[in-house]
Order: sequence, then structure tokens, then C-alpha cells
Amino acid sequence: MSVSPYNQLEQEWRRLHAFRGALSLLRWDAAVMMPRGSAEVRGEQVAALETEYHALLTAPKITRLLDRAQAHIRGLEDWQVANLREMRRQRDHAIATPVTLISRLARAAARAESHWLAARRDNNFALFAPHLEEVLLLVRDKSALLGQALNLPPYDALVDEFSPGIGTADIDAIFKALSRRLPGMISEAIGLQQSESVLPIAGKFPTGKQRSLVIEVMKAVGFPFDQGRLDESEHPFTEGVVGDIRVTTRYDAADPFNGLLGALHETGHAMYDLGMPPSWRDQPVGRDRGRALEESQSLLLEMIIGRSAPFLRYLLPLLHKHLGVGGPEWEFENLYRTQTRVRRGLIRVDADEMSYTLHIMQRYDIEKQLLSGKLAVRDLPEAWNAGMEQRFGSRPSAAADGCLQDMHWALGSFGYFPSYALGLVIAAQLWEALRVQLPEVDAQLARGEFGSVFGWLRENMHGFGAKLPVKDLIKQASGQPLGANALLRYLQGKYLAGAA
Amino acid sequence: MSVSPYNQLEQEWRRLHAFRGALSLLRWDAAVMMPRGSAEVRGEQVAALETEYHALLTAPKITRLLDRAQAHIRGLEDWQVANLREMRRQRDHAIATPVTLISRLARAAARAESHWLAARRDNNFALFAPHLEEVLLLVRDKSALLGQALNLPPYDALVDEFSPGIGTADIDAIFKALSRRLPGMISEAIGLQQSESVLPIAGKFPTGKQRSLVIEVMKAVGFPFDQGRLDESEHPFTEGVVGDIRVTTRYDAADPFNGLLGALHETGHAMYDLGMPPSWRDQPVGRDRGRALEESQSLLLEMIIGRSAPFLRYLLPLLHKHLGVGGPEWEFENLYRTQTRVRRGLIRVDADEMSYTLHIMQRYDIEKQLLSGKLAVRDLPEAWNAGMEQRFGSRPSAAADGCLQDMHWALGSFGYFPSYALGLVIAAQLWEALRVQLPEVDAQLARGEFGSVFGWLRENMHGFGAKLPVKDLIKQASGQPLGANALLRYLQGKYLAGAA
Repeated sequence: MSVSPYNQLEQEWRRLHAFRGALSLLRWDAAVMMPRGSAEVRGEQVAALETEYHALLTAPKITRLLDRAQAHIRGLEDWQVANLREMRRQRDHAIATPVTLISRLARAAARAESHWLAARRDNNFALFAPHLEEVLLLVRDKSALLGQALNLPPYDALVDEFSPGIGTADIDAIFKALSRRLPGMISEAIGLQQSESVLPIAGKFPTGKQRSLVIEVMKAVGFPFDQGRLDESEHPFTEGVVGDIRVTTRYDAADPFNGLLGALHETGHAMYDLGMPPSWRDQPVGRDRGRALEESQSLLLEMIIGRSAPFLRYLLPLLHKHLGVGGPEWEFENLYRTQTRVRRGLIRVDADEMSYTLHIMQRYDIEKQLLSGKLAVRDLPEAWNAGMEQRFGSRPSAAADGCLQDMHWALGSFGYFPSYALGLVIAAQLWEALRVQLPEVDAQLARGEFGSVFGWLRENMHGFGAKLPVKDLIKQASGQPLGANALLRYLQGKYLAGAA
Repeated sequence: MSVSPYNQLEQEWRRLHAFRGALSLLRWDAAVMMPRGSAEVRGEQVAALETEYHALLTAPKITRLLDRAQAHIRGLEDWQVANLREMRRQRDHAIATPVTLISRLARAAARAESHWLAARRDNNFALFAPHLEEVLLLVRDKSALLGQALNLPPYDALVDEFSPGIGTADIDAIFKALSRRLPGMISEAIGLQQSESVLPIAGKFPTGKQRSLVIEVMKAVGFPFDQGRLDESEHPFTEGVVGDIRVTTRYDAADPFNGLLGALHETGHAMYDLGMPPSWRDQPVGRDRGRALEESQSLLLEMIIGRSAPFLRYLLPLLHKHLGVGGPEWEFENLYRTQTRVRRGLIRVDADEMSYTLHIMQRYDIEKQLLSGKLAVRDLPEAWNAGMEQRFGSRPSAAADGCLQDMHWALGSFGYFPSYALGLVIAAQLWEALRVQLPEVDAQLARGEFGSVFGWLRENMHGFGAKLPVKDLIKQASGQPLGANALLRYLQGKYLAGAA
């Protein structure tokens, strides 16, 4: 019995999936377990596997099979047709970006990252500038090649790699709507909150106790500890594949919300991956529909649910139980105010949900200009500070709190930042739809019952994997096209309803 | 500039080395970190990488390059000629054993292992027998194919895979010499020790304290914790590659020597790997010269040094420091007696150094008969018990303490057991030579100074990697051909000197 070209492709991707999982474990280990002196050896292992992965994905055999499967597409089921499309997309992206360019970029990014760390520590942008320059040149090459292959402008090609189906036209429309409304809403919220007194949270919370709190919450959310782990790393991340998902967070001894919200963010990613149909797990159609949707799931859990009143009601007794805390600052009202404080801050990762997207707009504007060459690397600090002044009314006094605060550019991740803002926008759309269809959701969350939320997400979003184009999926799930209105309504209702 | 065929081969093996390292990390993680429910996903990852490794190693390109490099062998240095020989050897072994057979064996072994666990737990050989049968059939196929390719009898081909250059003729000669002398020596030692009173060691020793003791000892030995880790697993093992070596042990709350000696055994393996010339690290010539030599290094550190009087003098204050122990049973004399007690025990891993090789002979005789078909699997328990009666004077009352005690056969590792006995024999030869050339060694070890021992081993053995044939290396390092005499002299001197 001969195996059809399509079935042979599924077999090839099963192998690629196994390679991806192995690579992911190597990265997880490097960040969580690896001795400090082993980076070079690990670098060679990752490079060897990535090169082989690229070679397997771009082999002539794959091209032949794709063409033959395409010719017999009528015999395939819906999801298989989508799978074939995603296979071709992966292949096209891989062919467009030669492995030599990718490995040069990886090496330049490794250098830039270590100089970024030093520059941030010494608050000295000049240490980082030449390395960012080098990364930028290679990213420009990559974006040009990808753009040619995909028939897109260079920056759009980078965005497309992270979130296929979303382009700068979508982003511009959303950012326009947000920037028209948010500054005024922020002023209003800050004005309303001025009269509230907030007691600061203080104390020392041992890692072990924070960890047991986080694990109890993650179990309630539905994270499968028999097929996954929670560990610590310098920056929280999610690695692994379904069947062995690895989430990390970072504990701050002085602030138990830090480690918890970081873990919730990553658990949001994990739950998305876990929500795919099991039979698609090792196929392209069984993957997330891009980073914007990935971030919608992490931000929904971290920002929207994690800072909601019902979640806080569920959390309160757990804080007492695991951390043994007490006193007036640990009362519900005070904690809720702490978690929903609106500030014109300078740091993205500390931002509240209302001002968060403004931080992204700042980065979006600047990275487009860097890529096109309109902004020179040496002028980045001044452009950053001017942008912050315009958006937040103040300039960072140090580069470390300015254009050096994120590592994305050092790593060559241009075109990624919009995913965060889009993620929050999409999260708000999903949240709005979900609340209409699940009227009991607040009561459930207050009891620590996450089943109906994730059941809804699975049914309406996770379960489709990469089958539908992203904007179709968003519209189908939320009942409205991708746009800023749901986020604005959500923020209005949560922060300004009293003033409405 | 064109790259020579030989240099291209080095480049190919650099890639294979990176694959090996990645595979090793996947196995380490599976035994140490992986969630229990992730075995299937990991199995697919390991299989994908192993299949690819096999494909890369047996590609026509490699054969072409080997032939072309062979034609220009005169331009190569000594170690490169040896490297080329080892490359060819790896390729020949890989070609002789088709990947389908290897993966069928891997799957059968995985089934057999879980049934072995159940059979041992329930003390019921019948649960295991059909699975051992299945594994044995596949091992027989493998040994026949390997034997044809290497022009060796089937069992010798299996031994050759583990320890190239050592055959059953060597093993038979050594075992003959040992079995002529050891039974009498054991009787004599037991007689001498009868009059000694030994106070039992009792207590509860928390894992954390045992671990800090083990780490201090490993650091003294020279294990590089900046490029390696110590963890816990069900069975101690060493994985990883130089630059990122991962050693495990298993702690027994009631016996601190268990975890320590397990860690020393594995540290012996690690130190051998670490002793190779750095520039050969990613090449076949920069690997160990077979499992017999590997076991010589682990047993030298665990059995000979780890149970020596000077080591115990060094260890004593550390036991007090880390475990807070005291009392007469923790005095030097009593501990030394505990560690050197000769017993006619039934369990290999609990055996003393004098009776250890007898346990191996038992397995050697039986596994040869199983492979040839002279002994049927169903008759294994009786053959085992008869062998134990003959060698140790008593029969195990339960199969779990009999032919079910080791997992090697379940895993298809036929031909491995002799490595342990050969290892102890070689360790004794090296130890004898080393003590002549390093007259201060006892005083150094008693101070916890391992530098001169490992300096000597590196200079005389580790540093040669796989460059020399194993018997040449043993003779060069120890000044005597491979043989049982040094071990017999060592045991005589340590256990029977008072009676001489």
C-alpha cells in the first residue's frame, strides 16, 4: 500500500515536531538548569539541530511532496487543507531566509545581548550601539528577503512571521483609535484614583512559599503538572511541547504578585497550546495562530483575569494560607487598588493595563524607523526620550529606564512588540464575548473555578489551532472584527465607570 | 581554498558530537527532571534524533570521504590517523546494525524494562520471561549482523561494541585466574574478619546534608561544577558531554555511604571524559577507549580509593561536619571495617571488592548461554540459582534477589557485564603502577588532595583517548599486560596481609 504524498508530509512534520521539542528542551535547560560555563557547548548543540531542522524543512523532497499533495487536494479534509497551507508557509519562510543568515543573526544577537546587559548595568548606551547596529543590518537583510518572498514591505514581513495575517494597516488603525482615547482616559483614571488611599505591601516572602502558592493557582487554572513543570529563570518563559510543557517565573522576595503574575502569563501561553485538538499536536495546523493570539492568551490570564476583583477574592485566602500574611494592607479593597493603579510609568513590564499599549506604540514607531533607516541607532536614545515625553509627559533620567529596558531589539526581534498590544486588544474582545455567554463567570472565578473560561476558549479559539486565518478566527470567536473598541470599553468600565 | 576530505570528516563528526550531546541531555532530563507523563513525547524526540544521527553517520558522503581521506593518510598526524580509524569503526558498526533493528530493540527493551520492574516487585519471573525472550531474539539478530561485519563470533561482537579490542579469550583467561584464587581468599578473609566486632551505622541522614557532603568531596576530586551538575535519579548515571557533564546519585536516608559511593563511581566516569585532550573533544579519538576502561575509572574511585584507609581519614571530619555524626560507630577503625567487610552476598551492587568479580562471572556464563540458545529463558532462574550455589554456597530465596536483580538484560545490554570485572582488574593494575610512581599518594589522599592521582591518570591514560588499542594503552599505563595478577595482589595485600 502506498502512502499518499499528504500522509508522507504529515510523517515528515511529525519528525520536525520532534526536533522542535528537542530544541525547546535544550533552550529550557540552558535557562533553567545548565551550568554557567556550558553556554558554548550548548550553542553548538542548538546550532546543529537548527541547521538540520532547516535542511529537513527545505529539502527538495518536501517541495515535491507539497506539489503532489496540492494536486490531490480535493481528497483532503478541511483541516488537512489548512495543514498543507501551513506546511507550505513554514517551508516558504525557511527557504526565504538562508540558514547562514539565520546563524549570523543568532551569533550577532548573542553578542548584542551580552553587551545590552552590560550597557544597561552601566547605563551606557554607547556600549550597546555598535552591536545593535550589527543586528539591525542583518535584520534588514532578513526582512528584505522575507518581504520579497512574501510580497510584503520589509517591516510587514517581520510582523507576518510572528503573526501571519496581521499587517501594519491593522496595527495602525488600532493604534490610532487607542492613541485618540487613552491619554484622556489615563488622566481621568489617575484623577479618580488620587483620592484613594493605598497601603503599601511590605514583607519578605520566601521563594518556597511563593512557589507553593503559584502551584496551587496553576493547578486550579488547569495546568497539567504530570505533563509539565514550573521552574525559575531570569525572565519568565514557556518552552516545551504539549505533553511536556515547561513554564518558568521569577520570584521577587518583596512582592508576591510579581512571581504569580509572571507564572499566570506563561500559564496562559501553555493553556493555549494545551487547548489544541490532540490529533493535530505534531502538525503545523495544531500550533498557535501567531504571537498576537499567543499574547492575547497570556495577557487575558495575567492582566485581565489576574487583576480582576473575582480572581482577587479567590486569591485572598490563598495568600493567607501560603504566605501567612495579614493586616489592613492585605484586605481585599487595598489589594485591588494596588493591582489596578494607573500610572504614567516609564517601564513597560511594570505598566498597568490602561497605559500598557502606549508603551508598545512607542516601540512600534521607533522600530519601524530603525528598520527603514529613517532613524539612526546613535539617535535612538533621544528619539526614545522625545517619544516618552510626548506620550507620558516625562523623560527617563537614565538609558537603562529608557531605550535599554527591553532585550527584544538586541535579540533581533523586530516586529514582535505589536503582538503585545494586539494581544491585549484581542484579549479584551474575547473577554467581552465570553462574559456575555458565561454569565456565571465572576462567581466561578471567585471560587477558583476556571473550567468554564478555558472550556469557552478551547471551543471558540484554542481548538481551531492554525486552521483559520487569524482575523477570521478573532471575528468568529469574539463576534466582532479585530479592533480597539472592546479594549476601550473594558478599560472604561473597569476604571472610569464611576465617572461615566 | 578547498577543505581536505579528512578535515571535512572532522567537521561532520563535530556535528555528530553536537547531536550526541543533545541526545544525552534528553536522556538526562528524562531521568532527572521530566514529568512522569511525558515519556511518550520524549521517546519520539529521542527516536527522531537517533534516526537522524544514524542517517548522518551512514550517509554515502561519509563513505566517500573516508575512502578519500584514507588515500591521503600519509599527510595526517598520528592522532588523526587514529581518529580516521575510529570514524570508520563507528560507521561500520552503524551500517552493520540497521536503524529499524535498533528501534525495534529499543521498543522491546522499553516494554521489557517495565515488565522487569513488575516482575521484580512481584517476585515473579514469569511476568518478565516473554519480554526477555523478545529482547533476546533481537539481540541475537544484532549480534549476528555485527559479527558478520566485524568477522567475530556473535557474543564477541557484542563485547567488542562495548570494549573494542577485548574479546572472550581475554575475559576467559582473567576469569580462570580469578576463579582459581578468589574462593579460597574469600574464605580466608571472612575467617580473619570473624573476630572483628563491627558496630552498625544507624541514623537518619537528610538528603540535603548528604548532598553537601558529596559536593564537597566531588569538588576535592576535581569535578567542575561550573561545567557540570550533580542531581538525583533512581539509578546513578553520567550523561552529558565535556563542557556540560551531568552526574547523578541516589541517597539512602539510612546509609550516607550509598549516595557518596554512587556519586564517586559516576565522578570517576566524568573525570575520565574530562581528562581527554581538549582539542579532541568533539572527535571519535577524544572519547573513552571502551566501557572496560570507563568502569576501571569509576571502580578505581568508588571501590579502591573510596574504600581505602587514607580516603576514610579524609572523609571522617567531613562526615562530622556535614552530617553531625558522632559516637563509637563513627570512629575510623569501625568505619573502615564496615567498608571492607567481605561477604558471600547475593546482590552484585552490594558486593565487596573481593567477591565482586564472582558476581560478574555468574552473569557472563549465563548471558553467553542465553545468546547461543544453550540456555532457554524459562530455565534461567534455575541456572542462576545453581550458579550462585556453586559460587557463593547459597541460593537466593526469591527471584528478585536472583536473576531479576539487574536491569541489563531487560535493556538488551548483553556483553556489558564483563566490563565491570575487567574494569576492576584494570583499576588494580593502574593503582599498583600509580602507587609506585607516586609514593606520597596515601598522605595526599588523607588530606583530600586528588591532584596527583588524576594528574597521573591523565598523563598515562585519559590523555590518550581512543588513540591506542585498549590492550596497548593498559600495558603502557600500568607496565603490565591486561591480567588478573594485580587485582589478586591488591586484594591479598589489603585483606590478607596479616595472614601472609
